[in-house]
Amino acid sequence: MALVVIGGVAAGLSAAARARRIDPRLEIVVLERGPVISYAACGLPYYIEGRVGDVTDLIAYTAERFSRERKIDVRTGARVTAISHPRREVVLESGAKVPYEKLVVATGARGGLPDLPGAQLPNVFTLHTLDDAGRMRRFLRERRPKRAVVVGAGYIGVEAADALRRNGLRVTILERTAHALLRDDEAYTAAVRAQLERHGVELRTGVDVKAIQPDGVAGAASDMVVVAAGFRPNVELAAAAGIEIGPSGAIRTDERMETNLRGVFAAGDCAEVTHLVTGRPTWIPLGTTANKAGRVAGACAAGARERFPGVVGTSIVSVFGMGFATTGLSAAEARAEGFSPVVARIEARSRPRYYQGVKTTVELVADRTTRRLVGGSVIGEDGAAGRIDVIATALQARMRVDEFEMLDLAYSPPFSPVWDPILIAAQQLMKELAA
Amino acid sequence: MALVVIGGVAAGLSAAARARRIDPRLEIVVLERGPVISYAACGLPYYIEGRVGDVTDLIAYTAERFSRERKIDVRTGARVTAISHPRREVVLESGAKVPYEKLVVATGARGGLPDLPGAQLPNVFTLHTLDDAGRMRRFLRERRPKRAVVVGAGYIGVEAADALRRNGLRVTILERTAHALLRDDEAYTAAVRAQLERHGVELRTGVDVKAIQPDGVAGAASDMVVVAAGFRPNVELAAAAGIEIGPSGAIRTDERMETNLRGVFAAGDCAEVTHLVTGRPTWIPLGTTANKAGRVAGACAAGARERFPGVVGTSIVSVFGMGFATTGLSAAEARAEGFSPVVARIEARSRPRYYQGVKTTVELVADRTTRRLVGGSVIGEDGAAGRIDVIATALQARMRVDEFEMLDLAYSPPFSPVWDPILIAAQQLMKELAA
Repeated sequence: MALVVIGGVAAGLSAAARARRIDPRLEIVVLERGPVISYAACGLPYYIEGRVGDVTDLIAYTAERFSRERKIDVRTGARVTAISHPRREVVLESGAKVPYEKLVVATGARGGLPDLPGAQLPNVFTLHTLDDAGRMRRFLRERRPKRAVVVGAGYIGVEAADALRRNGLRVTILERTAHALLRDDEAYTAAVRAQLERHGVELRTGVDVKAIQPDGVAGAASDMVVVAAGFRPNVELAAAAGIEIGPSGAIRTDERMETNLRGVFAAGDCAEVTHLVTGRPTWIPLGTTANKAGRVAGACAAGARERFPGVVGTSIVSVFGMGFATTGLSAAEARAEGFSPVVARIEARSRPRYYQGVKTTVELVADRTTRRLVGGSVIGEDGAAGRIDVIATALQARMRVDEFEMLDLAYSPPFSPVWDPILIAAQQLMKELAA
Repeated sequence: MALVVIGGVAAGLSAAARARRIDPRLEIVVLERGPVISYAACGLPYYIEGRVGDVTDLIAYTAERFSRERKIDVRTGARVTAISHPRREVVLESGAKVPYEKLVVATGARGGLPDLPGAQLPNVFTLHTLDDAGRMRRFLRERRPKRAVVVGAGYIGVEAADALRRNGLRVTILERTAHALLRDDEAYTAAVRAQLERHGVELRTGVDVKAIQPDGVAGAASDMVVVAAGFRPNVELAAAAGIEIGPSGAIRTDERMETNLRGVFAAGDCAEVTHLVTGRPTWIPLGTTANKAGRVAGACAAGARERFPGVVGTSIVSVFGMGFATTGLSAAEARAEGFSPVVARIEARSRPRYYQGVKTTVELVADRTTRRLVGGSVIGEDGAAGRIDVIATALQARMRVDEFEMLDLAYSPPFSPVWDPILIAAQQLMKELAA
């Protein structure tokens, strides 16, 4: 019995490691098309920034170490060109065939807009792999660009803009939609914009980039361009093998992360998961989800019965030291999903005034009918991560505002005020619900 | 119809303010025996430390401002000597009587061991009121003591030791029980001790102080002594009026914070609340609980129907910059409460290694039978508050480890690692449960 895992980053390695724990004798093969496994893609912006000195600091495991410690056959540079499920084998670019009994598809996602005119210019970059980051750092060092355009105001776009600005560049972000950081929320986008502008980065929304010129994009002059847009799941291999693709464009799975083909699992940036607020399949490609869902895929592939219930869509991004964090749905998103959203948005101190508390903005969204919390956001330089995690936990527990308002949170002046901002927001939301 | 509130700090003022919101025409009288209202007792150690420059920075509202803005009759220096419920009146030390229809008892708690021989020496202090803190600061400035003994290793004792050490004193803490920070948990106490010792503070447990000498306590030489022990609820007034006292020694209430006397409510450090993990009444005097329970008492006294479900016993203390946070029950406490505790204790980084993550210790306790989480602790210099709050939220939601392990927490390198320490602890706990 052999387990083959296609993809050697977050989901693939989590699956392989978990399968090994469950079945010490299982034959496990990991096929990674790139030159390295197990790199922290989320750390790339900090390498660009210069905070991470050596790109190899972002590699958690070498293929050799992972192979040795886990007794897993890890092959880098192994690009799979086809999955033949009737034959239970995958075909490599080299023509070699690797038989499987169980398969985990963890082919990830890709970014960039390769078909955009100008996308192949030498001063145009994406930020997805270690190679991408190495190329960008070399360009920064050797060419000393003065102006950059970042296409896309998602997480990576904003993080890249932050990193480039800290390298002294003038940076403009061009975003196709009306909102930043993937949140359909005007006030949130306004806060992102204000923080970017405070640090000299311009955010232009509603700009549909049609081409990249050598010296600029859509009227914004630039010496270099980072394309942080066009993210989509790598599903072509799966689709060609008859694996069902869900409405989001990613691979559909059940709670065990199994696809419509028995014995074939999928996890990570190529796969859908259930959104626990809407109850519907969603595609939210994040490392945390990839690791958790990968573990479940690996466990189930190795014969255990585990389930991945889904996500609530939690994220956080540092924009020049300020945390921008969201979970669940914004009011606009909740309305689009058929909820009847009620919103409270408050500003409060992160700690007592006498203990240097700083402004924290909290928004909570509840459904008027059920009084259930359906989403929230936290913006602040102090404690944003912990606060959004509390809201995320409440979403996962399907908590009503009435219970949330009474949470027994830790208080001590070095950490928080006696009324935590999220509880003040909850009180405000109770008032809105009563109105 | 008049509402009388005895006590003008956290619970009392929360009750008065909330009652005013609910009923704009209600006559409300707050009787505070001290000279000021609304001071942040939790901030006193930071005034001793010197971080808070002026003790008045700890006063959120003056009586005048609170009276004016809320149209509430606030009387300071008004010591109540008796409650006559049959007459619906309280009697002041001056002999004056104040009639009430509804009464909120928020008489707080007191610390110190006034009957201990030596407790009245001029170099012996408590740290409960602004006056206490002012006296201690003056002593530090004028007498320049070199050595201090702190009696009691609870929150205030440890915070006072930290503050005095930062003033250059050699500090020894003497604690009667075997544990620190009110947690029956050997490993936790060992961690507190290690952190104290790292900063030159000695912790001696199992020392029952029988007397204070002018130059030392129980063999520990000292130029000054802080008594941070002997905390108990101020219930004498209530008990004399026929208000029922619970098994914890604090005032028993129902979920509306009403006592056995109809129309008489109690909240704050003088009152019991329900422990949501054990389901039993408990006395955990903390500002957060006082504020929440006070709000509910005020709301119900003003005719609204609200309820205070209870607490899970969350707390955090900074010990020389390291957060020591607990919620729910330790394993020993869980066993004493009849649970069948299973424990996982792990160390992990607060953020990725490449983003300067620091050691974080997480302990989770679950009940073997139900797989429900019943408690946890987090120790670390980075993010301890947010992490304990997630565990507290899970306790409040009665979450099982199986769900907790799948929490969708925010991840980004400046804030957390892709596997948050609390999720690593949850994985470990799942293994322990399977064993």
